[in-house]
Amino acid sequence: MRSLLLVTAAALLLAAGPPKLLTPSDIVAGAPASAWKTIPADELMVIDLAKGGRVVVQLAPAFAPVHVANIKALARGRYWNGATVYRVQDDYVAQWGLNDSDKPWPAGVTPKPPGEYVRPVKGLKIKPLGSPDPYAPAAGFVDGWPVGYSPKGGWATLAHCYGSVGVGRDLAPDTGTGGELYAVIGHGPRQLDRNIALVGRVIDGIDRFSTLQRGTEALGFYKDKSQYVPIASVRLASDMPIAGRPVFQVMDTASPAFAQYLKLRANRHDAFYEVPAGGVDLCNVVVPVRRQNPLP
Amino acid sequence: MRSLLLVTAAALLLAAGPPKLLTPSDIVAGAPASAWKTIPADELMVIDLAKGGRVVVQLAPAFAPVHVANIKALARGRYWNGATVYRVQDDYVAQWGLNDSDKPWPAGVTPKPPGEYVRPVKGLKIKPLGSPDPYAPAAGFVDGWPVGYSPKGGWATLAHCYGSVGVGRDLAPDTGTGGELYAVIGHGPRQLDRNIALVGRVIDGIDRFSTLQRGTEALGFYKDKSQYVPIASVRLASDMPIAGRPVFQVMDTASPAFAQYLKLRANRHDAFYEVPAGGVDLCNVVVPVRRQNPLP
Repeated sequence: MRSLLLVTAAALLLAAGPPKLLTPSDIVAGAPASAWKTIPADELMVIDLAKGGRVVVQLAPAFAPVHVANIKALARGRYWNGATVYRVQDDYVAQWGLNDSDKPWPAGVTPKPPGEYVRPVKGLKIKPLGSPDPYAPAAGFVDGWPVGYSPKGGWATLAHCYGSVGVGRDLAPDTGTGGELYAVIGHGPRQLDRNIALVGRVIDGIDRFSTLQRGTEALGFYKDKSQYVPIASVRLASDMPIAGRPVFQVMDTASPAFAQYLKLRANRHDAFYEVPAGGVDLCNVVVPVRRQNPLP
Repeated sequence: MRSLLLVTAAALLLAAGPPKLLTPSDIVAGAPASAWKTIPADELMVIDLAKGGRVVVQLAPAFAPVHVANIKALARGRYWNGATVYRVQDDYVAQWGLNDSDKPWPAGVTPKPPGEYVRPVKGLKIKPLGSPDPYAPAAGFVDGWPVGYSPKGGWATLAHCYGSVGVGRDLAPDTGTGGELYAVIGHGPRQLDRNIALVGRVIDGIDRFSTLQRGTEALGFYKDKSQYVPIASVRLASDMPIAGRPVFQVMDTASPAFAQYLKLRANRHDAFYEVPAGGVDLCNVVVPVRRQNPLP
């Protein structure tokens, strides 16, 4: 990543001139080891598409413990054998699963989980965003996750940003079991916050979903089953052979490095920018992630 | 568009039950003729991809008059013959043009336009968003366009939302001539507001850009020219035969219908939602557009 985000290829060659001011990417590249936390292998869901391509999801058990436990049980019980991506709605979501199968739940699945849309804000260590949020009285970061929260209301909620993964459901009080999941592939649909159980975020390979052809039916469902995009396997990294597991680290949002990154995201001052915004949207502060081992 | 945005196909069949509360889509569907304005044919840029697929851009001459005049001259002068999409960066932009060609500008092009990043707020009729904005002291809508503005600072700026089209440039004071354009295909990069000339927005066919394979080089440039996506033609609708022209209408953002739409975007109360947000992000209030003639 370079700071000259809209520059042409020629300018990439010419850009050696003026003194370089730090960019958010510079902060990420220079962050010390202490600013990174390795994601536990059983909190990585690895989705391999049949036609090639891998999507890796970081799970958020602290926010939706029952739904995440379900997802682990579904992966371990091979529930998603035969699953497909069957819905892709532009600027909204890609959704996958078995789409109305009556396949029985594997062992360990809670069929009707509680509404894990919010958690108590009390006791959470929050790094405040420092900018106003249209969807919550305040916004910030809790242990690597973007959240909206209300000190007065007592709640914190995971925020729907690009890449967020949530549980498809029907009408309330149904909260969804976890068999049908979606990933956000457009502008963060934050109106879904507090209305759906978010269970994680795509940290690698979101373009495998975002480049899929959009479905032409209502809500982006594919018209013909021939359009469905088959999924070869869904596994937890912890269930993969150690040698082939992906390993990722996420930036500690309580670290000084993240504070500096956040500040620069809100105040771009490098050569490309004439006017720093002085503020930033929660979903425009993507919590940095880095891969710790080479691709297999 | 239905309100049950994450429902499964089965629920689509079952959803006849509870009393239906109005959704934003219902407001759009029921808006009277007086709530719609036809977009002038010379403010529609029609991009046809060589492999099929059309992208239609509504131009914003009131915000960037010199850049938009350039774009019209470039289209009429067939500057984009041989143009391609050569850069696609995930969650950011797709960019097209001639990418460092030294092709001469057609007649009527101003090679070094002024910085049309903001316009005076004085005299603008603004429909306020009614929610806080992280990127400007206030946000709202001016004649169909999402804007950030500062009554105290005296400026209004077009906002970078999904589908926004802007002018690629090198380092300031260069503002870009208009030959290289980009469309936003991810979460609105509002940090670019006031730093780049926005010239319009994609109102049809954005998925032709958003589904393109992402480039693997820095900033999403394609590695090999063989990956470039060729553009067959770029025309103004006003230069097309009348019978084949696309005709679009945009909702009048000063209309009562838009006010109701905006209110419901911020307060979803239909059956799917348990908790209305009570606020909304500027970029999550996509100004409604409708096609007025059938596809050719």
